[in-house]
Amino acid sequence: MTGPVRFEIEHTCASGPSRLGRVETLHGSFQTPVFMPVGTKGTIKGLLPAVVEDLGSEIILNNAYHLLLRPGDELVASIGGVHSFMRWDRPILTDSGGFQAWSMADHNKLDDDGVTFKSIVDGARIHLSPERSIEIQNNLGADIIMAFDDCPPSTSGPSDHIDANRPSLGRAHQKQVGGDHRQRLADAVDRTARWLERCVAAHRRPDEQALFGIVQGGPDHDLRKRSIEQITNIDLPGYAIGGVAVGESSELIAEVVGLTAPHLPADRPRYLMGVGYERDIVAAVRAGVDMFDCVLPTRNGRNGGVFTKTGRLQIRNARFREDPSPIEADCDCPACLGGFSRAYLRHLFMAGEMLGGILLSLHNIRHFHRLMLDIRRAIRDDAWSSLAQAWPVLDAS
Amino acid sequence: MTGPVRFEIEHTCASGPSRLGRVETLHGSFQTPVFMPVGTKGTIKGLLPAVVEDLGSEIILNNAYHLLLRPGDELVASIGGVHSFMRWDRPILTDSGGFQAWSMADHNKLDDDGVTFKSIVDGARIHLSPERSIEIQNNLGADIIMAFDDCPPSTSGPSDHIDANRPSLGRAHQKQVGGDHRQRLADAVDRTARWLERCVAAHRRPDEQALFGIVQGGPDHDLRKRSIEQITNIDLPGYAIGGVAVGESSELIAEVVGLTAPHLPADRPRYLMGVGYERDIVAAVRAGVDMFDCVLPTRNGRNGGVFTKTGRLQIRNARFREDPSPIEADCDCPACLGGFSRAYLRHLFMAGEMLGGILLSLHNIRHFHRLMLDIRRAIRDDAWSSLAQAWPVLDAS
Repeated sequence: MTGPVRFEIEHTCASGPSRLGRVETLHGSFQTPVFMPVGTKGTIKGLLPAVVEDLGSEIILNNAYHLLLRPGDELVASIGGVHSFMRWDRPILTDSGGFQAWSMADHNKLDDDGVTFKSIVDGARIHLSPERSIEIQNNLGADIIMAFDDCPPSTSGPSDHIDANRPSLGRAHQKQVGGDHRQRLADAVDRTARWLERCVAAHRRPDEQALFGIVQGGPDHDLRKRSIEQITNIDLPGYAIGGVAVGESSELIAEVVGLTAPHLPADRPRYLMGVGYERDIVAAVRAGVDMFDCVLPTRNGRNGGVFTKTGRLQIRNARFREDPSPIEADCDCPACLGGFSRAYLRHLFMAGEMLGGILLSLHNIRHFHRLMLDIRRAIRDDAWSSLAQAWPVLDAS
Repeated sequence: MTGPVRFEIEHTCASGPSRLGRVETLHGSFQTPVFMPVGTKGTIKGLLPAVVEDLGSEIILNNAYHLLLRPGDELVASIGGVHSFMRWDRPILTDSGGFQAWSMADHNKLDDDGVTFKSIVDGARIHLSPERSIEIQNNLGADIIMAFDDCPPSTSGPSDHIDANRPSLGRAHQKQVGGDHRQRLADAVDRTARWLERCVAAHRRPDEQALFGIVQGGPDHDLRKRSIEQITNIDLPGYAIGGVAVGESSELIAEVVGLTAPHLPADRPRYLMGVGYERDIVAAVRAGVDMFDCVLPTRNGRNGGVFTKTGRLQIRNARFREDPSPIEADCDCPACLGGFSRAYLRHLFMAGEMLGGILLSLHNIRHFHRLMLDIRRAIRDDAWSSLAQAWPVLDAS
């Protein structure tokens, strides 16, 4: 079954499993490999949808968890669904809320039925189960919806308040809860598989929304193998690799992706959730992954963090005080093309002006889209060394 | 002398002193009567310059005071001046800082030389004089610069921390300092006149920047008359009415404007500083005023306040929770034309998402530009009752 999305592979790299493709949905198509900007609460923070589209965004991500808490999935449905609600007519993917329900709530309880937690908005008791998560996502109406999974941190106990979204990278804010962590991961693998069956059964709009399964198993090779078998045993229009973007090193991410991606069906889109930095994305593409999302461009942007081909900058740094040059000379984003100087951008941050975060978000999102463009060229021409030359940041240690 | 701006009156209303005009500057022209959005710190908060232009903005305002404190006028000059710094190629007007230096600083000292105050940014002692204010504005390089005036509140003692900009209306946060208030107003009138002469003498770029004088005098008819004589005695390319937008009623504003505007030279643009609400603007236009600025559209917008032809709304109000309609049915702003529902806008505010303030700022700025369009039509056709019919808010008490 491929459901309402059609995945067409247009070219496979001469030297490996990377592929160029296109995913068609009822709201238009997107090219793969693709980077999806994150609009957690139904908005890419600070950016009008038309501007996000102009940056080259073909699909964006929303979080079912956040939209459930506020304004509520029924309200979004009453406005015509999330496309109509946020005025984004192109493809949308919603995350299931499994990760957030577990990681963001102070008082949560996990059992086979689901997760119970306190709303961070109003303290109300909320219960999320596979059935409820799918109902929420059916109400939101995204083109691709994600299975409700049990997503423990991969290297220690359940993380607590890791993040407001699927997590940023490089952090290791994880809490040891004791007990046998491998057993916890194993339980999560089996529970995720059982929950996936319930998600499939609960899905009311399979002709409009494609449900993707999520492989868990942390860094453990055997558990990953088991999860791959269980999840791919269910015929779905796409498969995701979960549980790796919770603070691991690039090496560990690449390792898990390397042992997982090749075993996901080649004719379905493969989605690496919450990743990440440029070289993580390139490594995953080379392992055959097609879809990526990450909050880094917008979150870092709002905090003065700038992505460039040669590495990251902090625009607040005093050395930019009188710098008349744009962020990056060859960049075609509205900030660089618009001629906004580093000195001006720094001023906006020093003065607490939100236009600073907006301009850096524009630049950073475009940065990742430009990376995907060059990655697609590298796949077509099997030109990975050219890619590395054009993007020195890929060599950063 | 008209300096680098040329003011052409294209039509005078059949029934009164209102006029349609055009002001030409070295950065292009703007039609009058005009509404100027306020970009205090070198940015219309949250909006890209191209978007501000698309709204119909032909000239914007910056504050010399804020740009002096951060990032500093020399820095702005080193980037090519404020047009280049903020990437706005059309006309710009800078306020002189006289009002802010007095109203915003905790420890200020006023004497005939100028004002000394503590920087709200870093606590440094700052001295502003007519000469220094003009130097700052010469460095910033706006097309229209304002005289450094002594701007006491019109109805009581010096205001203290009234506002971050030239003030919003309707507030009366004013501190009684005792003493003879009329004497204070009279001193301010004479000082403003002496300072204007020093401003003219200090102005280094009279061929590029037009210096406007400012009439003071509070609500006192005799003092206004004295100030008008003193200020218009100096031949300048434009004249402003100051000291009325500090908390007065609409009636008092209209009274002061009515007794001042007719005595300002008819062949020069007349600028009512910091005003205001729709009916204040209409009343001033009918008295012959050509230029307006106000922070209301953007400041209220960031706080959920919406301007409509029928009155003001607070988008956070629960009655908009499930409202699928746009803000205003006949509005052509990007928020209304883009189909963003009141329910979605409310959600953005409830969720603390900055896109909410951005969308309302777009709507509100456009609201004032649409008002000016309709005002221009009313002047041309002498159709003031049609204007009142189309804008019920003008009748609001």
